Amino acid sequence: MTRPKIYLFGDSITEESFSVGGWGASLAHHFSRTADVVLRGYSGYNTRWALKVLERVFPASHGGDGGTGTAPIALSVFFGANDACVPDRCSAFQHVPLHEYKQNLHSIVSFFKKRWPTTLVLLITPPPIDEDARCRYPYVENPQGLPERTNEAAGEYARACIGVAGECGIPVVDLWTKMQQYPDWNKDYLCDGLHLTQSGNQVVFEEVITKLREEGLNLESIPVDLPLIADIDPNDPLKSFLQ
Amino acid sequence: MTRPKIYLFGDSITEESFSVGGWGASLAHHFSRTADVVLRGYSGYNTRWALKVLERVFPASHGGDGGTGTAPIALSVFFGANDACVPDRCSAFQHVPLHEYKQNLHSIVSFFKKRWPTTLVLLITPPPIDEDARCRYPYVENPQGLPERTNEAAGEYARACIGVAGECGIPVVDLWTKMQQYPDWNKDYLCDGLHLTQSGNQVVFEEVITKLREEGLNLESIPVDLPLIADIDPNDPLKSFLQ
Repeated sequence: MTRPKIYLFGDSITEESFSVGGWGASLAHHFSRTADVVLRGYSGYNTRWALKVLERVFPASHGGDGGTGTAPIALSVFFGANDACVPDRCSAFQHVPLHEYKQNLHSIVSFFKKRWPTTLVLLITPPPIDEDARCRYPYVENPQGLPERTNEAAGEYARACIGVAGECGIPVVDLWTKMQQYPDWNKDYLCDGLHLTQSGNQVVFEEVITKLREEGLNLESIPVDLPLIADIDPNDPLKSFLQ
Repeated sequence: MTRPKIYLFGDSITEESFSVGGWGASLAHHFSRTADVVLRGYSGYNTRWALKVLERVFPASHGGDGGTGTAPIALSVFFGANDACVPDRCSAFQHVPLHEYKQNLHSIVSFFKKRWPTTLVLLITPPPIDEDARCRYPYVENPQGLPERTNEAAGEYARACIGVAGECGIPVVDLWTKMQQYPDWNKDYLCDGLHLTQSGNQVVFEEVITKLREEGLNLESIPVDLPLIADIDPNDPLKSFLQ
């Protein structure tokens, strides 16, 4: 059989999702005998840059197996944390205005819906921001001493992302809201005010699994690749491998 | 660009390699912007069963991208822990005689060398066995109360695996020897006398990375997929995305 694929497309929170306890690795482990989880995370990228590279990240099939011709069963689109950088602070070059972020997300979703009409496209909102921690762990020189991301801005982009999902009729994980339902979200879920701890990764994993299941995609709905050891007859193992 | 692939083919120690701290996930994280790490682990399988399913796990290209037509840059073959089950104990149905194990490994390597002459095929020996722990954590009913795997047998299969690597002129990770160089290997590296702890997974990851590097395959030798954030000009970011 050919295993179905699940693509993870996003920024650093996707690129780092195979670190220890990462949500991408957890998905790959969860689907270890059923689907391939393919990492397409690009640290620092916003939706403007994502749009520029979309055709290169997901090239059309070209006869061999090098392209991405076969429709994946699912694909996550997880951008916004960089778009939401404050425009007049130290990471301004990553900022994308809110209305353009919405347009870009629409364009990205349309690209996938046109390429792969059957694929479950799942949006994920940016996480909340711990501004104090963002001042303590700057990524670039920060002479102003002000956080380059704010939780309020992240919330606006999260709501915009939810709006796009609604307009496109596709599911969305509202990570910004979900995480803030826990009192110590800023310390338990975030390691530097933006990126995820193991617990934060676990939240993303569980939310993604839940959304996939709501859309009919779970371990029971995907064929298992080759007989499980529990289904192999100890008295005649080779019987399981007749074609 | 199309990312190169690294396949991980093996038994449960491969199938579980994307659990928290797993060696497969660590590889995927290490190569997060350069190569796709593809999981093909089948719990409980020995080399006899692996041979039966080889064509199904790695189907020839069939025009679309569903096959495995493009040569991966590397592929690990990690079997032997099940072949080495003691023939007259409770997991006897997984046992494969030593001479057949060698023949099977040869056949598996030949299959890949014929299919993909340029692919770096890496053998990994079975890990050492903690027999006391194997009695405490039985996988099947064990009325005899004897360990279904012994460290001595695992060592014989490990030496056979190293022999095959030598005969084929391909690299091998001697996990059986490497792990036993540490005094508390049985507690630190193994969680049930056979499968790996996070520390044990780390050993596999480091050994695999080292072998790949010795064979010329490392982060510097594989092109990065799209510009890194550090290489994007903050004053003119879009310049980086001109084709």
